[in-house]
Amino acid sequence: MELLKGKKGIITGALNDKSIAWKVAERAIAEGAEVVLTNTPLSLRMGGLQAFADAHGCPVVAADATSLDDLGTLVDQAMEHFGGPFDFVLHSIGMSPNVRKNRPYEALDYNYLGKTLDISALSFHKLLHSLYTRDALREWGSVVALTYIAAERAFVGYNDMADAKALLQSITRSFGAIYGPARHVRINTVSQSPTATTAGQGIAGMEQMLHYADRMSPLGNATADDCADYIVTLFSDYTRKVTMQNLYHDGGFSSVGLTAAQVATFTEEK
Amino acid sequence: MELLKGKKGIITGALNDKSIAWKVAERAIAEGAEVVLTNTPLSLRMGGLQAFADAHGCPVVAADATSLDDLGTLVDQAMEHFGGPFDFVLHSIGMSPNVRKNRPYEALDYNYLGKTLDISALSFHKLLHSLYTRDALREWGSVVALTYIAAERAFVGYNDMADAKALLQSITRSFGAIYGPARHVRINTVSQSPTATTAGQGIAGMEQMLHYADRMSPLGNATADDCADYIVTLFSDYTRKVTMQNLYHDGGFSSVGLTAAQVATFTEEK
Amino acid sequence: MELLKGKKGIITGALNDKSIAWKVAERAIAEGAEVVLTNTPLSLRMGGLQAFADAHGCPVVAADATSLDDLGTLVDQAMEHFGGPFDFVLHSIGMSPNVRKNRPYEALDYNYLGKTLDISALSFHKLLHSLYTRDALREWGSVVALTYIAAERAFVGYNDMADAKALLQSITRSFGAIYGPARHVRINTVSQSPTATTAGQGIAGMEQMLHYADRMSPLGNATADDCADYIVTLFSDYTRKVTMQNLYHDGGFSSVGLTAAQVATFTEEK
Amino acid sequence: MELLKGKKGIITGALNDKSIAWKVAERAIAEGAEVVLTNTPLSLRMGGLQAFADAHGCPVVAADATSLDDLGTLVDQAMEHFGGPFDFVLHSIGMSPNVRKNRPYEALDYNYLGKTLDISALSFHKLLHSLYTRDALREWGSVVALTYIAAERAFVGYNDMADAKALLQSITRSFGAIYGPARHVRINTVSQSPTATTAGQGIAGMEQMLHYADRMSPLGNATADDCADYIVTLFSDYTRKVTMQNLYHDGGFSSVGLTAAQVATFTEEK
Repeated sequence: MELLKGKKGIITGALNDKSIAWKVAERAIAEGAEVVLTNTPLSLRMGGLQAFADAHGCPVVAADATSLDDLGTLVDQAMEHFGGPFDFVLHSIGMSPNVRKNRPYEALDYNYLGKTLDISALSFHKLLHSLYTRDALREWGSVVALTYIAAERAFVGYNDMADAKALLQSITRSFGAIYGPARHVRINTVSQSPTATTAGQGIAGMEQMLHYADRMSPLGNATADDCADYIVTLFSDYTRKVTMQNLYHDGGFSSVGLTAAQVATFTEEK
Repeated sequence: MELLKGKKGIITGALNDKSIAWKVAERAIAEGAEVVLTNTPLSLRMGGLQAFADAHGCPVVAADATSLDDLGTLVDQAMEHFGGPFDFVLHSIGMSPNVRKNRPYEALDYNYLGKTLDISALSFHKLLHSLYTRDALREWGSVVALTYIAAERAFVGYNDMADAKALLQSITRSFGAIYGPARHVRINTVSQSPTATTAGQGIAGMEQMLHYADRMSPLGNATADDCADYIVTLFSDYTRKVTMQNLYHDGGFSSVGLTAAQVATFTEEK
Repeated sequence: MELLKGKKGIITGALNDKSIAWKVAERAIAEGAEVVLTNTPLSLRMGGLQAFADAHGCPVVAADATSLDDLGTLVDQAMEHFGGPFDFVLHSIGMSPNVRKNRPYEALDYNYLGKTLDISALSFHKLLHSLYTRDALREWGSVVALTYIAAERAFVGYNDMADAKALLQSITRSFGAIYGPARHVRINTVSQSPTATTAGQGIAGMEQMLHYADRMSPLGNATADDCADYIVTLFSDYTRKVTMQNLYHDGGFSSVGLTAAQVATFTEEK
Repeated sequence: MELLKGKKGIITGALNDKSIAWKVAERAIAEGAEVVLTNTPLSLRMGGLQAFADAHGCPVVAADATSLDDLGTLVDQAMEHFGGPFDFVLHSIGMSPNVRKNRPYEALDYNYLGKTLDISALSFHKLLHSLYTRDALREWGSVVALTYIAAERAFVGYNDMADAKALLQSITRSFGAIYGPARHVRINTVSQSPTATTAGQGIAGMEQMLHYADRMSPLGNATADDCADYIVTLFSDYTRKVTMQNLYHDGGFSSVGLTAAQVATFTEEK
């Protein structure tokens, strides 16, 4: 299958082989795409992304996603590498110092909150701005950002990441309304099941969360591999008229109030 | 590209080459699928579906989608034709006698309303029931029904079809919560841009509606061809964990409050 | 407090002192309203509504809510009693023979389903039609119907009532778009917490459901009394510009993904 | 009517007699409440709030809503004035330097964006934090923030205020999930029709927007006076179990796709 034959794009946020972004990069390459990879200098040192890139012949560009300069360089280098505009971008970037430092939501450190929003949400605006001003995406290009349902419903422990994801989803709509008419570029978010990535490990009670979500999802949790499959369809020419949407890829969790599997745990309680 | 290689399914509601269902059948076949076609006896006489079927070597089964017997026969014949369970189903069935007879919404004929709901929504439950009881869908099968955003927001002239589509979307969630755990079958609706099909011609002011929707969609209206592209991704193995969703395929219309293109018409008004 | 001073209305569906409708009638009267009560002949014999009506000097009109004739008579008698048009109506009517007979959703009896929809949803259209054609509601009148979040998310055991409530909510929007411009009448649904009424007892696992919803609601479940308080605000002149909305009155349940109270039950599980 | 008899609260953001907050203050006082007013030092010099406060015997506390210190002082002074905890708070604060300076959304000034978010959204978190840590709200207290539907759908010209409002609405849910269980305090947003306030005048094409929204609202636009009526119900004891909701107070706009009034303008276009 070569769903992305001839397509080229940037994939952010791949750290190691548990990352959704890593899986997307693998899948996109397997589907015929060429990719440029990027992450922060620190992440590049920590994970195995360089080895992955070497194996697949992809350039890696170090970039701090909060820096307009770095993002500009990233887009410039991608255009240079690809010999012109390209087709898709994945935003898979999020981090909350408040979560890391166990600051409860009612007592956030506001400097940290600024960082959470800057890294996890404003980076998406900056990235889109960098693409837009350089006309770096081809007609009918596709941009996808990863999000989580905590943007719509409160989940204990998800903390200020919920607010960051809500902001990210709004940026998706706001910029999609501009990039669509201007260049026929679509922008969507994928709201993924909780996933056992390295980043996910920072969230308190992640394992319980995974079990709960699995019981409340008629098809079970979507894995990182499932997510990569889905995202390549969104990069492909098959989905050109889908834009400004938040697309749940979650085994049905978002449309469920209560499942038989969850009810079974009530009975056990007694 | 053979996105549906080895896959088999039923496509309902294709009338002529303007039908979304017709386009889906064409696209599915082009992607490697085998299909069984079905429509009402009357529609089969009116349109050119038999010629299409002959050209592609597909069986055509006449069925009234409100009849459990007919739907049972349809599923049985499909299983017989395919030599066992199959992979996907498209529900593209809707009709309102109230719309046809110009009964305004505040003065519906309740017998007609019963028919609108039976044809346009309950047929989906009956179809799913017929599939489920026969275990006619393979693991990770996919069912898609076509809907319209009037199910969520009032559109003048759409009349009782809005209510039928809301009911259809609820059936999607209700049955998806059962078919998912039981057999890993996913069920979704695609909420498509207004489309210039033969069925759409029955809606009052359809042409104005098309223009309005186009101006209010950052990527413009999605066509029947676009819709067929999108639906084959939902039948494919790339989207296995998407279920119980209403997926807008509408050029962004659903996420827009007001566009610059629409504002331009205000200025012209003066 | 006389929030409804001088206001007059019809309240359907009060059976006994556990009914939400009963509480609404009590509260409306306490707030200065005059009411006409109605229920089916059978319900009138079963419950204590006549005694309630006698105590408060309210007429009771027996009516089958699926019968246009009965609804017409109800509205006519209310207008006669009130000496003209009136101000508010509560729709609190729902029943599923499939639930009563324990038919699972994947194997509904379709005659029963027709009755579920007719009683629980189409009755609302018929009631609105009866009001509209008689111009029975004063300017800025208010109509409220009771619903449940199963209309948006699947709840095991809620069965075809979920579909009926989705249909009810669509009728609210569809008719609201007509009654608003015509007579400034607003129409809304209140999506209430699961409530320990006599009707609720028909739902399988109701007690577990109540506990679960309570744990997942930051303010706990809303009671029938709470609901009556809320509904009188919707009948009052304070909420004149709210229409075509589904208003969650549920202690926050609808905006929650996971609460600390629910997480605590996971820990107990071990 | 004394819907708020004995209740006490803080009202932010009243500038002059066109402000929604001003109307809410007037209405709350008329309903029996005592209020403390606050705005920025600059706004206090510009508008006529001091005269209003003098006429009604309310304290005015100058506060920059981005300053934790100022908000702490505000809450402390309110508690001192009221002799203890109080009952309600209105957040009506928003400003975008990007809008004021006509920076288009695709080319935002990121320093300005930081200010937009800080003033219009994070101020709400800081205010809630200041209330929460001082236990300044009584059991079953109520907090309301004003928002706009651009948080969910893209409106040309609304610019980064859309993102700020999305963030505000997320903070509402996130903090509501904590304040509910802890102290039975509810937190909601009211999504109001476009309103001809002094702040609204900053938005490009505001007059066209008002006409458009009015044509697309079955009950017409909700005014500032209507909004004040609605908000006092949310401060009252009648709505104790409503929390974490975004409540549309918009004449039905949010539930409409296309109205007859809007279609009439298409015809005129020709």
